[in-house]
Amino acid sequence: MNILVINSGSSSLKYQLFHMPDEKPLCTGLIEKIGKEDSFIRHKTINKEDVQVTEKTLSVKDYGEGMKHVLALLTDSGLIKNTDDLEVIGHRVVHGGEHFSTAVIIDPDVKQKIMGLSTLAPLHNPVNYKCIEFAEKIFPNAKQIAVFDTAFHQTMPEFAFRYAVPEKYYSEMHIRAYGFHGTSHKYVSEKAMERLGKPDAKIISIHLGNGCSITAVNGGKSIDTSMGFGPLSGLVMGTRSGDIDPSVILHLQRKEGKTADEMDKLLNNESGLLGLAGSNDMRDVVKMLEAGNYDAELAIDMYAYRIKKYIGSYAAVLNGLDAIVFTAGVGENDALMREKICRDMEYFGIQLDAESNRAKSDQIREISGKSGRVKILVIPTNEELEIARQSFELLREDPPCEQVNLY
Amino acid sequence: MNILVINSGSSSLKYQLFHMPDEKPLCTGLIEKIGKEDSFIRHKTINKEDVQVTEKTLSVKDYGEGMKHVLALLTDSGLIKNTDDLEVIGHRVVHGGEHFSTAVIIDPDVKQKIMGLSTLAPLHNPVNYKCIEFAEKIFPNAKQIAVFDTAFHQTMPEFAFRYAVPEKYYSEMHIRAYGFHGTSHKYVSEKAMERLGKPDAKIISIHLGNGCSITAVNGGKSIDTSMGFGPLSGLVMGTRSGDIDPSVILHLQRKEGKTADEMDKLLNNESGLLGLAGSNDMRDVVKMLEAGNYDAELAIDMYAYRIKKYIGSYAAVLNGLDAIVFTAGVGENDALMREKICRDMEYFGIQLDAESNRAKSDQIREISGKSGRVKILVIPTNEELEIARQSFELLREDPPCEQVNLY
Ligand SMILES: Nc1ncnc2c1ncn2[C@@H]1O[C@H](COP(=O)(O)OP(=O)(O)O)[C@@H](O)[C@H]1O
Ligand SMILES: Nc1ncnc2c1ncn2[C@@H]1O[C@H](COP(=O)(O)OP(=O)(O)O)[C@@H](O)[C@H]1O
Repeated sequence: MNILVINSGSSSLKYQLFHMPDEKPLCTGLIEKIGKEDSFIRHKTINKEDVQVTEKTLSVKDYGEGMKHVLALLTDSGLIKNTDDLEVIGHRVVHGGEHFSTAVIIDPDVKQKIMGLSTLAPLHNPVNYKCIEFAEKIFPNAKQIAVFDTAFHQTMPEFAFRYAVPEKYYSEMHIRAYGFHGTSHKYVSEKAMERLGKPDAKIISIHLGNGCSITAVNGGKSIDTSMGFGPLSGLVMGTRSGDIDPSVILHLQRKEGKTADEMDKLLNNESGLLGLAGSNDMRDVVKMLEAGNYDAELAIDMYAYRIKKYIGSYAAVLNGLDAIVFTAGVGENDALMREKICRDMEYFGIQLDAESNRAKSDQIREISGKSGRVKILVIPTNEELEIARQSFELLREDPPCEQVNLY
Repeated sequence: MNILVINSGSSSLKYQLFHMPDEKPLCTGLIEKIGKEDSFIRHKTINKEDVQVTEKTLSVKDYGEGMKHVLALLTDSGLIKNTDDLEVIGHRVVHGGEHFSTAVIIDPDVKQKIMGLSTLAPLHNPVNYKCIEFAEKIFPNAKQIAVFDTAFHQTMPEFAFRYAVPEKYYSEMHIRAYGFHGTSHKYVSEKAMERLGKPDAKIISIHLGNGCSITAVNGGKSIDTSMGFGPLSGLVMGTRSGDIDPSVILHLQRKEGKTADEMDKLLNNESGLLGLAGSNDMRDVVKMLEAGNYDAELAIDMYAYRIKKYIGSYAAVLNGLDAIVFTAGVGENDALMREKICRDMEYFGIQLDAESNRAKSDQIREISGKSGRVKILVIPTNEELEIARQSFELLREDPPCEQVNLY
């Protein structure tokens, strides 16, 4: 069975075709700058060692047109013969609110809920919804499945997901921590559990990409995570501030007359590594550090320090720690950052092996030193594969996975 | 030598007279609801076992009048003969910014700096300033000394006190974490170090009053603390939310059109225990919990959970832990809360002795169990005495303590 995975962002569309259950990727592609004149398409057909790349710059005016390009690229490269040839499409959906704690088959009720959650994820859910509608039109015979970024975190206990504001903000306005990057945290923490051979393992999963988040996983269940109501809180990210005293926002609004939208822009798009060091790309910041730049050094120190604090915090809520897992762009590739994070953490039994930390690899690997009690793992994430897996599992099961419906 | 300590809040004035260096309190008093018709004065003269209490309800229209009442109460009770009889007045000042890392003798430059910091502490510094001016007028021959809530935390490293927003917000607008309750954290952590007989001890000091904060103290120096730019972030408090995803603020402003002032009121005055359970007084909330109230249970669980997370976090930045210290109203008196915080923390070597935890006392005491590596201490705080001590030390020294001047 082939499963097409659709991952639509705020102006991009990524897709990947897997053969299941052997998890073989057949193609992968990307459409960027949707809605602009110079949209960009890259498609790779993968046939064992042979990779064929197609690239085009042209105008892709909306997600509907984008989906049509995907269809054309799949048929042109011989991966499917016609639209009936595709049985399953797995969609990444950012916000599942309290409705969805697992992947679900999309029906009108699910679609309505996804659209209803747009107030909580205004940049993402409407786009995800549109792609589902286009996919239903283009591939009318395929099963459409939704896999939510928030779903993995629905196991958080209430004392962890609530904020200390009056109850009505939760019951009436759905203000609580949802957490994101759930698909990635689930994928890498399961890999870690497998590797440890310990189904009740206590794991801290650290996703460091453009967005960054960290999750406490107890026996395969997320019990706390650093992103909250939105994807802004927690760690220092590429362009996002992460945790910040809320009174800073009020102070800046009073002193500079900043509106909510301006503050949003400041904290989401102009902060983090970019705000501190002038680039949101960790590779640039590391280069600046190596050239002796003070701001870059501070940015990297703050980035690492914040992660250290969360590791301690999650070791406390887990009351133990078997492994920490580094994943995503920075987590998988940045040996210096891993070194900074793990330095002076002996109290937790965290101790890095300098040599295996520096070795380059795109495989799952262990970088802990001999005297550490805690395994330190680097595990490449693969959200697309995880979506394909969950879609496959869901269709295999009968009846489908339990769905949680809290409001 | 007698030292009068003045602690002026946003509508109250507390004072205490100490005989130094034996630290004997001679009197203590409180004026509440300053500026109202029904202001309330309570004065206690302490003579060994004999305590004489004077109480009055009358109108005290401003802090100047309040200071005159203090003078009258001191002379009427025979504690001083005239205004020349008082050599030293120690003032609690909330915000010392980056100017002050220790107590200082007040001169025109210090006063100007205190007033200049009013943008950062608009409810407190102007009042503290006024009380200094009145004290100078009423006691023209006394040495006036300022002791700052923020001073103890000036040892925090930059990667701990900065936020991940563009640098200009720090350099131009002084946006950074300052921390508060410093006088209390210094007092109890020094007591703990004494008790441990370990000058390089790693201590987490947990101040749980109406305001709550937690500090990592390494060898007598604060290296991180939960309150930040203002006294809002960190732990769940009586009426304050503590940590909250900043995107919640932006969302509420957009959806409900809330202004900065309204958000300030919500997060500072209507949240925390009050927002969750309907009372800001932990005693009430505990009673509700005992009566089976769900909201009270949740509030208490959230309060304890947040503290657990900070303990883990600060154990990480200390890379070790010798003792945790509970202090202030809840910390000193609430055995249930201490029990909840210390439960399931064996991984950190934190283990409570149930019996000594429940024993009531107003003395410094140890409540850790035999199998715990970390000492758990209850230490009654005494910010007034700490102010008297620092004032006394400052005058004894020659030259006076180093003052840090960063901007
Ligand atoms: N070799 C490397 N060293 C340091 N950082 C890297 C390296 N490779 C990628 N990164 C960083 O990873 C981040 C992007 O991570 P990625 O997981 O691709 O992001 P996304 O969240 O968009 O999926 C960028 O900050 C990039 O600089
Ligand atoms: N026996 C007690 N049990 C539980 N909480 C208590 C007890 N005594 C006082 N408290 C709580 O202590 C808090 C006030 O602490 P305190 O240190 O006096 O505050 P402040 O910050 O104003 O100095 C209140 O929430 C009060 O309910």
